[in-house]
Amino acid sequence: MPSPEFFQVLPVADALKLLDSHWQPTPAREFIATADALDRISAAEVVSPEAVPAFRKSTVDGYAVRAADTFGASQALPAFLEVIGEIKMGEIPGRDIGSGQALAIHTGGMLPEGADAAVMIETTQVIGGGEIEAMRAVAPGENVIQAGEDVAAGAAILSGRHRLRAADIGGLLAVGVEQIEVLRPPRVGILSCGDELLPPAVAPPPGKVRDINAYTLSALAQTLGAEPLRLGIARDTLEDYRARAEAGFAESDILLLSAGSSVSARDYTRDVINGLGAPGLLQHGLATKPGKPTIIAVCEDKPVIGLPGNPVSALLVARQILPHLIARFLGQTLERPPLIRARLALRVASETGREDWLAVRLRATDEEYPLAEPLFGKSNLIFTLVGADALLRVPLNSGGLDAGSLVDVAPL
Amino acid sequence: MPSPEFFQVLPVADALKLLDSHWQPTPAREFIATADALDRISAAEVVSPEAVPAFRKSTVDGYAVRAADTFGASQALPAFLEVIGEIKMGEIPGRDIGSGQALAIHTGGMLPEGADAAVMIETTQVIGGGEIEAMRAVAPGENVIQAGEDVAAGAAILSGRHRLRAADIGGLLAVGVEQIEVLRPPRVGILSCGDELLPPAVAPPPGKVRDINAYTLSALAQTLGAEPLRLGIARDTLEDYRARAEAGFAESDILLLSAGSSVSARDYTRDVINGLGAPGLLQHGLATKPGKPTIIAVCEDKPVIGLPGNPVSALLVARQILPHLIARFLGQTLERPPLIRARLALRVASETGREDWLAVRLRATDEEYPLAEPLFGKSNLIFTLVGADALLRVPLNSGGLDAGSLVDVAPL
Repeated sequence: MPSPEFFQVLPVADALKLLDSHWQPTPAREFIATADALDRISAAEVVSPEAVPAFRKSTVDGYAVRAADTFGASQALPAFLEVIGEIKMGEIPGRDIGSGQALAIHTGGMLPEGADAAVMIETTQVIGGGEIEAMRAVAPGENVIQAGEDVAAGAAILSGRHRLRAADIGGLLAVGVEQIEVLRPPRVGILSCGDELLPPAVAPPPGKVRDINAYTLSALAQTLGAEPLRLGIARDTLEDYRARAEAGFAESDILLLSAGSSVSARDYTRDVINGLGAPGLLQHGLATKPGKPTIIAVCEDKPVIGLPGNPVSALLVARQILPHLIARFLGQTLERPPLIRARLALRVASETGREDWLAVRLRATDEEYPLAEPLFGKSNLIFTLVGADALLRVPLNSGGLDAGSLVDVAPL
Repeated sequence: MPSPEFFQVLPVADALKLLDSHWQPTPAREFIATADALDRISAAEVVSPEAVPAFRKSTVDGYAVRAADTFGASQALPAFLEVIGEIKMGEIPGRDIGSGQALAIHTGGMLPEGADAAVMIETTQVIGGGEIEAMRAVAPGENVIQAGEDVAAGAAILSGRHRLRAADIGGLLAVGVEQIEVLRPPRVGILSCGDELLPPAVAPPPGKVRDINAYTLSALAQTLGAEPLRLGIARDTLEDYRARAEAGFAESDILLLSAGSSVSARDYTRDVINGLGAPGLLQHGLATKPGKPTIIAVCEDKPVIGLPGNPVSALLVARQILPHLIARFLGQTLERPPLIRARLALRVASETGREDWLAVRLRATDEEYPLAEPLFGKSNLIFTLVGADALLRVPLNSGGLDAGSLVDVAPL
């Protein structure tokens, strides 16, 4: 039996910087329908092919007028205007207006030639005989959107590496951009290794367990906007592990190896990773619990992460690493996940030199903040996590957190 | 031309309470693959069909032993144990152990009969002749997970109306639950009305514009976990509007009508909604800007919302209403969207009696918080929203917000 491993552990943030210094992602691009592009990342700046609006529009229900005809108008001394017709929605005004004339218009209606403003219906009064009184003056351009005022043809409307939101999809479609070039999301390959592992569909005989890392890590990758690739389970031989890792590596932009529980599988992981290409293994051991035996590597410009085999450890470490990798792949600034402020129910101790992640349950109280109750007991059990609401980070070298202190917990 | 409308406006929260008092959603259920169930809502409590682990396991690399054989052991006075073999990962131990015996075991390995604890390899030393020294005592059960310790067969592992997270998918698959009954997400029908509207694929002739509300509202619904149904564009006649609304209503769980810009379309909306069923229109007019002319209705136990036709107004109002409706449909507590704390660059005024929503751009500064710069100008232009990073809510009756104050803005 090989001797136990001792690691020179590195804080997660430092390990990610080390990785970044060896990795320049080059995401592929693809054209997709703008209507389907929610949350996708634009590949390049987009320029508007059209002006919006394409024509001068009224922003009110009322009358298109010459502003000069209303100058000085007031309730006491209204301006009289002859209404010569109505501009129908979606149509070109049938006629121009001249001095002293007005055309009824609706919000969004096209201004006729001759008009340079609109008066709101609320400031007018119909006096019969085809005439109205305008009881308030309007300035030229008042209650009107000029052609191109929303956006000019040729103006940049979207920068590259921009995450598309509902409003952006609206803006793009408003100028007829029906296809948009976006980055292809990273393919995150996930390979498990271990003779004790079986796919979840198989009822495991005594001694064996279902491999669930492929599914928890897929779900995490999906949440982060990546495309998960489940690469199956490698047998606990160097040959099978290597063959499956190489095949999976070829299809992946980021490769996660979750290295069973057996000592040999753990040992193979280093060799398998170094065999995938230079520079290979960069760091073995992170200052985090769970997750200490994690491997950080870059092979031929792709990150390769060796995760612990325990499902809880694998998921909690991947949560610390994968968001960074996917954001960097897509040229995004990593957003801090939303945190929930809570009051800690019990003192939690922590060893110096590592960051601890503890599962907590949140309980509403009369107080403003919920109570965060750490779920003690065996932290490596998946149902501890299933029963938890959030994770509490006990910072590096904090010596723990006191009962009653306010903490920020990350929803699971 | 009809006379202008005056509304008795209601704060959005009150309008939603009014709606809830007339609406009891009854979501349909469906079975789907657990592996695909991320973010779906469980329809009912799930009970574990199996115990996890199914067998006693070691949590360390080391030796399976009888704890009693190690009692009193120390570095100075180790216990001697005869190693009678190794338990391979994923296999049933070939043999039991007796007093003074040990079997080498790996993390996750199955404990043999006769053993009741495991000693960590780090606390042992191989002394040759098939013997080891155990230099630390272990208690019965130490470094062992008992069968069923993670979860017992028959235990409730998931409550109903629970949003499935990565860990939950892992837990379900760990006990072989490969299919799960979830709620069918609400179908949000979206119908636009107006003679000036054309689908985005059509280059609009002068006077007409592309209808983008179907797409911005679809994207919003999608973000919220609903299934959008784009119902097309109704012509500005009561007959066409009614026919399309009725057909769309039949397929939808929630119906959004965005009622063009023309006065007649706006008038039709009330009639069309009341024609869809009782109780019909509940409130016309919200104390929010943009969005004042919004209609809140329930017809035959489905919410029907009449939105303004302007794309910015429609989207900003829908952001205030749709999250509540979808959360309630799925039996979820509405989570406050993540907010960004920012320092307000300029004073913003606000009228008493309504809540204002202002588009802001966020600019990083030397300070801890970004600077929130309100994008003034015409708030009803879609590219004002495209150029914005977030929305600032100016609370009801606040009289505005001062320059330099800290505000929470909602990312767009």
